[in-house]
Amino acid sequence: MLRRFIRTMSESKIKEFTLKTPKGTKDWADKDMVIREGIFSYLSTLFKKHGGVTIDTPVFELREILSGKYGEDSKLIYNLEDQGGELTSLRYDLTVPFARFVAMNGISSIKRYHIAKVYRRDQPAMTKGRMREFYQCDFDVAGAYDTMVPDAEMLEILCSGLQGLGINDFKVKLNHRKILDGIFEVCGVKEEDVRKVSSAVDKLDKSPWEIVRKEMVDEKNQPEEVADRIGEYVKLILLANESASQGIRDMAILSDYVEAFGISKLLSFDLSLARGLDYYTGLIYEAVTAQSAPPTTVDSKKKKSLKEDDDASDYVGVGSIVAGGRYDNLVGMFSASKKSIPCVGVSFGVERIFSLVRQRLVQDQQVRASHTNVFIMAFGNGFLTERMAVAKRLWDAGIETEYLYKNKSNPRRQFEAAEKLGCSIAVILGKDEVAQGKVRVKTLNTGVNDDGELVDLDNVAPYVKEKLEGIVRVDDISRLIGNLTN
Amino acid sequence: MLRRFIRTMSESKIKEFTLKTPKGTKDWADKDMVIREGIFSYLSTLFKKHGGVTIDTPVFELREILSGKYGEDSKLIYNLEDQGGELTSLRYDLTVPFARFVAMNGISSIKRYHIAKVYRRDQPAMTKGRMREFYQCDFDVAGAYDTMVPDAEMLEILCSGLQGLGINDFKVKLNHRKILDGIFEVCGVKEEDVRKVSSAVDKLDKSPWEIVRKEMVDEKNQPEEVADRIGEYVKLILLANESASQGIRDMAILSDYVEAFGISKLLSFDLSLARGLDYYTGLIYEAVTAQSAPPTTVDSKKKKSLKEDDDASDYVGVGSIVAGGRYDNLVGMFSASKKSIPCVGVSFGVERIFSLVRQRLVQDQQVRASHTNVFIMAFGNGFLTERMAVAKRLWDAGIETEYLYKNKSNPRRQFEAAEKLGCSIAVILGKDEVAQGKVRVKTLNTGVNDDGELVDLDNVAPYVKEKLEGIVRVDDISRLIGNLTN
Repeated sequence: MLRRFIRTMSESKIKEFTLKTPKGTKDWADKDMVIREGIFSYLSTLFKKHGGVTIDTPVFELREILSGKYGEDSKLIYNLEDQGGELTSLRYDLTVPFARFVAMNGISSIKRYHIAKVYRRDQPAMTKGRMREFYQCDFDVAGAYDTMVPDAEMLEILCSGLQGLGINDFKVKLNHRKILDGIFEVCGVKEEDVRKVSSAVDKLDKSPWEIVRKEMVDEKNQPEEVADRIGEYVKLILLANESASQGIRDMAILSDYVEAFGISKLLSFDLSLARGLDYYTGLIYEAVTAQSAPPTTVDSKKKKSLKEDDDASDYVGVGSIVAGGRYDNLVGMFSASKKSIPCVGVSFGVERIFSLVRQRLVQDQQVRASHTNVFIMAFGNGFLTERMAVAKRLWDAGIETEYLYKNKSNPRRQFEAAEKLGCSIAVILGKDEVAQGKVRVKTLNTGVNDDGELVDLDNVAPYVKEKLEGIVRVDDISRLIGNLTN
Repeated sequence: MLRRFIRTMSESKIKEFTLKTPKGTKDWADKDMVIREGIFSYLSTLFKKHGGVTIDTPVFELREILSGKYGEDSKLIYNLEDQGGELTSLRYDLTVPFARFVAMNGISSIKRYHIAKVYRRDQPAMTKGRMREFYQCDFDVAGAYDTMVPDAEMLEILCSGLQGLGINDFKVKLNHRKILDGIFEVCGVKEEDVRKVSSAVDKLDKSPWEIVRKEMVDEKNQPEEVADRIGEYVKLILLANESASQGIRDMAILSDYVEAFGISKLLSFDLSLARGLDYYTGLIYEAVTAQSAPPTTVDSKKKKSLKEDDDASDYVGVGSIVAGGRYDNLVGMFSASKKSIPCVGVSFGVERIFSLVRQRLVQDQQVRASHTNVFIMAFGNGFLTERMAVAKRLWDAGIETEYLYKNKSNPRRQFEAAEKLGCSIAVILGKDEVAQGKVRVKTLNTGVNDDGELVDLDNVAPYVKEKLEGIVRVDDISRLIGNLTN
């Protein structure tokens, strides 16, 4: 009785704080964080190079803004509790908030990029990089332009973006909603059924035709003969081009433009590509890579605890890593005058790209979490305030500097701390040096066991700065990411 | 009757989409976004200079993690709807998630910075920069170190951080929770009442003693004689130092350290500073500026529509712009072993700092929203694919380049577009040039009406790159922010 009571006590104590992040979310830290920030920085630079300006929208929107935009997936939207006031939901993607922003501000043209988190109450599959909270890196062009001109640039951004991140074994599948719509029309699919049939067709790259056909008939309520007709057309590599002539004309125009960018060999027309989202109206595309990310790269430490969340049976590699398309009617849905602003966009799936980039960087120990380059040490005496004063000089000169937060510490401890951080330079204060108003500056990791150079206190910042410029660091993340391309 | 029906119809149509962001939130775009990103980049660099590594935690936490951490303000926490599964809430600050992260990963020491949004269901006051969704820029040091050593560095970061952003007319108020606690104890405040009496004392800089005394007696249920005794002690500039000796010892140690950093003249001991948050245990501090942000700087366009949200009566300038303190017990609250990791941190209030920085930058037209430097034009013929191919060369060389998304456009339109973006260089394709495999490179805004230089197509990227390096741009945001300090 007593033992049971004690057990209940300790159980409730443990239960008091469930030390975990919510399902489908995770913390990012250490080298993973440095790599991910490197990817964000790389993509921002890419988007800016193409004239992109960035915006930031709230993480939640009025619920009615999101409703009716995501078809069947609307059930995955996170709602905020009704605590009085407006009903709101977490954003599901960055596209609908962008369209709301364009309509609300009466913007007629903008090239905007947005790197931010989105939220989906999906079944998490950590090994596939599918989370409930994840980043999207989107670049979208809104405005009425000549056919396929911004669309072609999206494909250029997609291709050079992946290549710049060292991902070369990818292919881009293209299709055109108008071509698909034409086929469905010819096959006798009713207009209101087009989107749900689309989402079945989209599974053709993962499931055999028989499964997709079954879904069309059983779940999407299509007559068997309609399903068979779709199969015939879609499975055909060549298209009977009586229908969908506009889509085909667009594709012909596009092919000249992607030729000018020198990316045509990376693209392939794929009639089975449909993309789930309701709002696409024209060209759609998706980059896939055959390379799968091994489960260990995503979150090796927590592998065990994640197993229950992870549906190993549908593990098919990281799948699509960039995707997008044209959506000409979404802004109009938010506009009182129903005036639409045509849009086209591309979205990089960071979590998936991260797995691929990390895989290449992880074997070497080059990536550092810390940026500290200089460690200030005291030999013999603590010299804490003296170390602080030297640190202040270096910080003011823009130099990343640390020292032990101790009044006194032995030299070995201080060298260990410097080494652990990966510092290049030690600034050493000894009794003699301090008395002379000097410090010793010693380059670390040279293999040479010297005492360093004696430097005047007043000259320490410029001296160290110059010395650092001469040290080529191999662990700079942008250099590492850049090197991946070679 | 019919007219009324029609009116109802059109009203309901308009009501269909309320084109706004949720109460207390806003979109960020254009130059405001560029300035804010400049501030983030400046603060990240500052934090890295002090050994900071960054982490990213989910925007929502398990509800039980947040509960019991914010005292009276817990009612301001946003909950997510219970849609099955765990109960979660949006983070209220970055400190509690940080403590959860440290405890969960069994970390014994870390210097981490985190720049991210937090959420409070407060009454928004846009003119004061008080929003429901806003950024915090936090730097925290966890670990057992010698007394006041990391604390002093926090103050150094606070001071040099503001100065680096061109904010010089600030003062930093310091106090120590242990000194306050000692005073309260001497005055006869019961232990369980200490925090609520603290939060009354904290109002002393805004309200006269009589108001604060009334709050203590009427709302905080303190006996009148206790309130009077507190008044006596707190109002005294010098402290009868029998009590709170540890806090006073700490402050004496601190004074040596801030002397070493050369920041002591910016600091002042202020017994009336208490800080609302429950979790502080040692040194607390807050930077205030007398400078108020005029309402127009925050969101001039929407000024009218925001008026209803804005309580003008309690407008007291931007108030505290950076704040923080020591919290030694928070990590222990999450640890099963109750083992605590001492922590100290500083939090920059970006929205408020933004108003001050923008105020200085806004009078000049220097800040650009776009980063585009080169505009490619065609004279005479459209040369669209030729322009694309030139753009590809420049993009591959890392040069920010745009062109009109039109098959054909007249020169005037193209020059206007280049000027609007603030481009420095035009690359021009004419019939003769294209025939020769050349382009013209013309520097813009020189006042000279020349034709530019004839350059071989193969040489265009290195040529333009070199030319751009020679053009000193005055609109680089980091340079602008840097210049503020002079």
